[in-house]
Amino acid sequence: MRTALALAARGLGNTWPNPAVGCVIVTRGPFGDRIVGRGWTQPGGRPHAERRALDQAGPLARGATAYVTLEPCAHHGHTPPCAEGLIEAGVARVVTALTDPDPRVAGRGHQMLRAAGIEVIEGVCGPEARAMNAGFLKRVERGLPFVTLKLATTIDGRIATASGESRWITGPQARRAVHAMRMRHDAVMVGSGTARADDPDLTVRDMGAARQPIRIVIDSHLRHSTDSRLGRTARAVPVWMIHTAAATDAARTDWASTGAHLIEVPEREGHTDLTAALRHLAAEGLTRIFCEGGADLAAALIRANLVDELAHFGAGALIGAEGRAALGGLDLGALSDAPRLTLIDVAPVGADTLTRWQFGI
Amino acid sequence: MRTALALAARGLGNTWPNPAVGCVIVTRGPFGDRIVGRGWTQPGGRPHAERRALDQAGPLARGATAYVTLEPCAHHGHTPPCAEGLIEAGVARVVTALTDPDPRVAGRGHQMLRAAGIEVIEGVCGPEARAMNAGFLKRVERGLPFVTLKLATTIDGRIATASGESRWITGPQARRAVHAMRMRHDAVMVGSGTARADDPDLTVRDMGAARQPIRIVIDSHLRHSTDSRLGRTARAVPVWMIHTAAATDAARTDWASTGAHLIEVPEREGHTDLTAALRHLAAEGLTRIFCEGGADLAAALIRANLVDELAHFGAGALIGAEGRAALGGLDLGALSDAPRLTLIDVAPVGADTLTRWQFGI
Repeated sequence: MRTALALAARGLGNTWPNPAVGCVIVTRGPFGDRIVGRGWTQPGGRPHAERRALDQAGPLARGATAYVTLEPCAHHGHTPPCAEGLIEAGVARVVTALTDPDPRVAGRGHQMLRAAGIEVIEGVCGPEARAMNAGFLKRVERGLPFVTLKLATTIDGRIATASGESRWITGPQARRAVHAMRMRHDAVMVGSGTARADDPDLTVRDMGAARQPIRIVIDSHLRHSTDSRLGRTARAVPVWMIHTAAATDAARTDWASTGAHLIEVPEREGHTDLTAALRHLAAEGLTRIFCEGGADLAAALIRANLVDELAHFGAGALIGAEGRAALGGLDLGALSDAPRLTLIDVAPVGADTLTRWQFGI
Repeated sequence: MRTALALAARGLGNTWPNPAVGCVIVTRGPFGDRIVGRGWTQPGGRPHAERRALDQAGPLARGATAYVTLEPCAHHGHTPPCAEGLIEAGVARVVTALTDPDPRVAGRGHQMLRAAGIEVIEGVCGPEARAMNAGFLKRVERGLPFVTLKLATTIDGRIATASGESRWITGPQARRAVHAMRMRHDAVMVGSGTARADDPDLTVRDMGAARQPIRIVIDSHLRHSTDSRLGRTARAVPVWMIHTAAATDAARTDWASTGAHLIEVPEREGHTDLTAALRHLAAEGLTRIFCEGGADLAAALIRANLVDELAHFGAGALIGAEGRAALGGLDLGALSDAPRLTLIDVAPVGADTLTRWQFGI
């Protein structure tokens, strides 16, 4: 199952709105177990992992065990159901990590396999599979995408000098790690301040990415210039501009002419309603969003309890109290109101550190 | 030599103004090498490591090899020179990591051993021994103590809420690690603001410490109350108050009556001249100082280029922009002026992280 999970991870960022699934088919032979088929959900979500692994295994699948990180689908969608494929191939045993919460599956995949006389074992490596599928599960179960917030700061929590200088605080290995993270998400998101200050491109570079993430700007007034890196490249790699009724007709027309996808969401206390925005993004199929700031958007997402994971790059530098803070205000009354996060892991990345923290535990 | 270095580490914080040295005596027998004596500098700096190891080895030292983390001393001080002790014991070979920069030794220890026909091998594990003896070496070579700055912050670099609430940001394991760090330093130092705000005790608790570190407050006006934890306990564990001419006679008399040691140093731009203060502390014998803040003292030490190592505890919490910053102002012109630090190591400590950084590389 761990092999299947590692295969599944290859699909992260590429399979939305489908889950990233991995499948390994194993036969027992005279010299021990042998992997005869391996598959993972392909970019765009199809073919499914099981189909790929079965095709690879061919006739060797007969009597074999299939390890699948998610319950095989049971419904006729764009492809025939994978449960059917496993039955037809004559697999003797199916081991899964998770029940698919999609109401079109929800146990029916397991049921279909059992009805065909296949032995089914569920829940193997369940917690790992839940973590891997956190985006898909959150979208199906709560109608929201999984959000990873990236902060890259000095040891004293600064992201720029008083004058706004921020290139570069972290080193090349950390910046490369950011591209790898972008690649594992369906979309990359920034606030309008960061878009204007940095004129970012937000693409994945030098990673052999199968698919570029959607590029999202939260820009209530649509003030970001269309003559920006995002505006000029919106036809090549999708740009989704999230705005409110405050955006002028002229700005809407300009941005629409770049090829960007405009999404109007309600206001909330004079700002973009971020919960509404993320619900909309989930409804459009996004399961995993990587937010790269700035400080105000980060704080607003945290205040609205919309962040699931924090990826903190720590650089060996100090800027001092005059520098720009990594986070805007959180309006805390007392220390006991401060959001508490659980450490996932910590490691050096080149000359910097990367600490991953989990919210809401 | 690694065993000897591990023994030496036991003395850190306990041996000032002497270095913390480790010594292992090894004989070659029919069944391989055998350790017949182990020693490290005892609390207060005496007996020396070599003396302890030789006493343990007794007649077995004859013909043996002694591994010593620092050149054995060659001068008659409070104790006879260790080089003499090694010669008398009939040791055949001495392996050392470092030459002692103390002008009373400075190669004479090695010379004395060679003159007696002992084989001497120098420089084994030199870099490790330099790091271990950084405080002793800096004091002898530059007349300044080695300074470790501790920062304990949220992920966004805050040390308290806007109202000053800071208990507790880090968890019990991190706080215990702080006590272990205090124990490995000769003195613990805070600024007057922290002293007033937290009324700290600054002792090492629950660690079986052989000796408590000196407790130092940088308090130019001597405004910290004598009716504080430090004032009330100054006779039990030394308190050194560093002030300037700005301290009133009344405050001096009050503090002197607690048993605290008063040190007057010059002013510099209206504040305590920290370089002068640290030179004074080195002259009094201190080799390793652990500074626990606050934000202004930390920033002033960094601006004066007096910090050698930064121990950063990162807690899984966020306070936001209204919170109190870990560091005061550094008056940077450009990002290229920001102090750059080199990562020593990073690891989880309970629910928090501990990242150690080195200055000036």
